[in-house]
Amino acid sequence: MNSIPSFNAPLEAIAPISREAFRDGMAKMAAAVNIITTDGPAGRAGFAATAVCSVTDSPATLLICLNRTASVFDTVMQNAVVCVNVLSSEHEALSGLFGGKTPVDERFAAAEWEAGVTGAPVLKDALVSFDCRITEQCDIGTHRVLYCTVEGIHDGQDAEALLYYRRSYQRV
Amino acid sequence: MNSIPSFNAPLEAIAPISREAFRDGMAKMAAAVNIITTDGPAGRAGFAATAVCSVTDSPATLLICLNRTASVFDTVMQNAVVCVNVLSSEHEALSGLFGGKTPVDERFAAAEWEAGVTGAPVLKDALVSFDCRITEQCDIGTHRVLYCTVEGIHDGQDAEALLYYRRSYQRV
Repeated sequence: MNSIPSFNAPLEAIAPISREAFRDGMAKMAAAVNIITTDGPAGRAGFAATAVCSVTDSPATLLICLNRTASVFDTVMQNAVVCVNVLSSEHEALSGLFGGKTPVDERFAAAEWEAGVTGAPVLKDALVSFDCRITEQCDIGTHRVLYCTVEGIHDGQDAEALLYYRRSYQRV
Repeated sequence: MNSIPSFNAPLEAIAPISREAFRDGMAKMAAAVNIITTDGPAGRAGFAATAVCSVTDSPATLLICLNRTASVFDTVMQNAVVCVNVLSSEHEALSGLFGGKTPVDERFAAAEWEAGVTGAPVLKDALVSFDCRITEQCDIGTHRVLYCTVEGIHDGQDAEALLYYRRSYQRV
């Protein structure tokens, strides 16, 4: 990772962006809702996330932004595998469960799973699931960006997608 | 950026994921549509993109995945500034223009813009625009991931969002 030289506006002209202004702005960028799971030597874990992005198809790679203080952080990093399960509009309650404080066993008990090739739990009725190995990482501020090489794809049901937009669930 | 040790399934068990399978899977992950613009010493450019993701609010940072062979690549990297303009449902035609082969002046002539604090063009009727400086970068396969520190936010209209899902435009 390299720093980029600065050519443009002088730094003294720039007012800092508050957390609140950034979050308010980002609330207007609609995003698919995913449940990201892991399993392995550090145990099973899962969380709901929208900060997932396609990177390249050569080799098939996606990225996930994860807060380094998240309760799942150490488990994810130690297992070094994740499954990104893309949610349908039927999964709103499941997303709430994986986005809250519910104990891990209760989260997983609320849906059906199978083990992917990496060992990460694949949600049986997801729109599609990407079974991945974490191959690179990069720390930016409070977060770690996980670059994940896709080792298995489970194409699931054709249904409406679950979205998060303006701080509420939507479907499309 | 560090490599991660591998703990799980042996590599010989893993079939490679084809480009087509990855793209088919990613088509089921709905995403907001953005027009990303730049201006500066290397000139003005702009392109439509869905591969944008919030990274952290401390400091306010987003990322963009850009193909290193894209026609806009050198211009973006030399200017080192970008504005991410989040599109409304009224911008479908504009997105097509910025996603195709239209000459740069014709692209920009189709909408109203103002210069942001970084000098990048801000779309006047975007849902919201993030005026950014590229501060870090990371190459992954065919693409470069640009980490962009937000220096200005232009909160725009409240309207339906433009999405891309299953290879077609949708609104929410």
